[in-house]
Amino acid sequence: MTKIITISRQFGSGGRTVGRKLAEKLGIPCYDAEIIQKISEKSGYSKEYIEEQSESEAGGLFGSFGTAELYGYSGKLTIWSNQCRIIEELAAQGDCVIVGRCADYVLKNREDIELFKVFIYADTKDRIHRIVHEYGETDVKPEKRLREKDKRRKAYYEVYTDQKFGDPLNYDMCLNTSYLGIEGCADLIAGVYREK
Amino acid sequence: MTKIITISRQFGSGGRTVGRKLAEKLGIPCYDAEIIQKISEKSGYSKEYIEEQSESEAGGLFGSFGTAELYGYSGKLTIWSNQCRIIEELAAQGDCVIVGRCADYVLKNREDIELFKVFIYADTKDRIHRIVHEYGETDVKPEKRLREKDKRRKAYYEVYTDQKFGDPLNYDMCLNTSYLGIEGCADLIAGVYREK
Repeated sequence: MTKIITISRQFGSGGRTVGRKLAEKLGIPCYDAEIIQKISEKSGYSKEYIEEQSESEAGGLFGSFGTAELYGYSGKLTIWSNQCRIIEELAAQGDCVIVGRCADYVLKNREDIELFKVFIYADTKDRIHRIVHEYGETDVKPEKRLREKDKRRKAYYEVYTDQKFGDPLNYDMCLNTSYLGIEGCADLIAGVYREK
Repeated sequence: MTKIITISRQFGSGGRTVGRKLAEKLGIPCYDAEIIQKISEKSGYSKEYIEEQSESEAGGLFGSFGTAELYGYSGKLTIWSNQCRIIEELAAQGDCVIVGRCADYVLKNREDIELFKVFIYADTKDRIHRIVHEYGETDVKPEKRLREKDKRRKAYYEVYTDQKFGDPLNYDMCLNTSYLGIEGCADLIAGVYREK
């Protein structure tokens, strides 16, 4: 049976790096930015537009309907349906790690897949340190960047999945990189994956 | 440095058994029912009263003040302060596992302790199966027993700690026994503990 690990993650938690290291350890592909690239190819929307739309909090999928919102609504639906199809296609290619994109939700009822759903998070001080040192400083204070991104990611996940973002009950395992380290998290997940 | 593992757990998740097996694997004591026993000895309240008070949702610690509530308030405070002292005393005796009793919160600012905070949860169907088969059937439907106990445990934790019960951010690791198994959870925690 195909074995797929999905990584949901807090912004600045290092979840993306955990996914990459994990895939290296297991010798399987890790899909992350590739998904945005593929949605762009299929839908015709630019990668920037897709990233912006798919983490936009403004009204969620079912916001109020002005003309601009109607356009946004249609765009979001196109992006979401392409995203679901691409995740299904990637899953059909065999064992892999998928970071973000609500893949845990998209694949959750597939009985032909052994799905291992992981949530990666971190202490606030470490998230701030990471976004400043890895993503660079901006005019906006890091605390505010975290708050805004958390709000958007939560709204995005909750609108599309009707599940609570970061609720352990949606996942098989939730790991704090502040305590366990990036490498430690990758090792733990790899260990469970190999035993299944 | 003393290394202590605290296990917070959903009712019916098997968290108590995880704690016991974990302590056996590590050859260290596991404190659970002993804490209630010790509170009873120190405070003079019966074990039943302590269990009932400490998971009572009625008004929390700072409920409305009728005569009965005043008595309840004073009882709760006595129990809570004894509980904190007993947890501190147990921690002073060396490495151990502590199940429940908000020990994660009581010990969280102790710089002389290497604290490893774990949350154990499970899928609803498995929790129902466990409470019916391990704790026995009652007149109350298992779904209702789960809901009521969840509500009480959440209220208890949140009133005393001012933290959200079951929020991954309070813990270093959250494990789903439905996916990982009781033994699997104990092994994972023991592995991390040994590496620290």
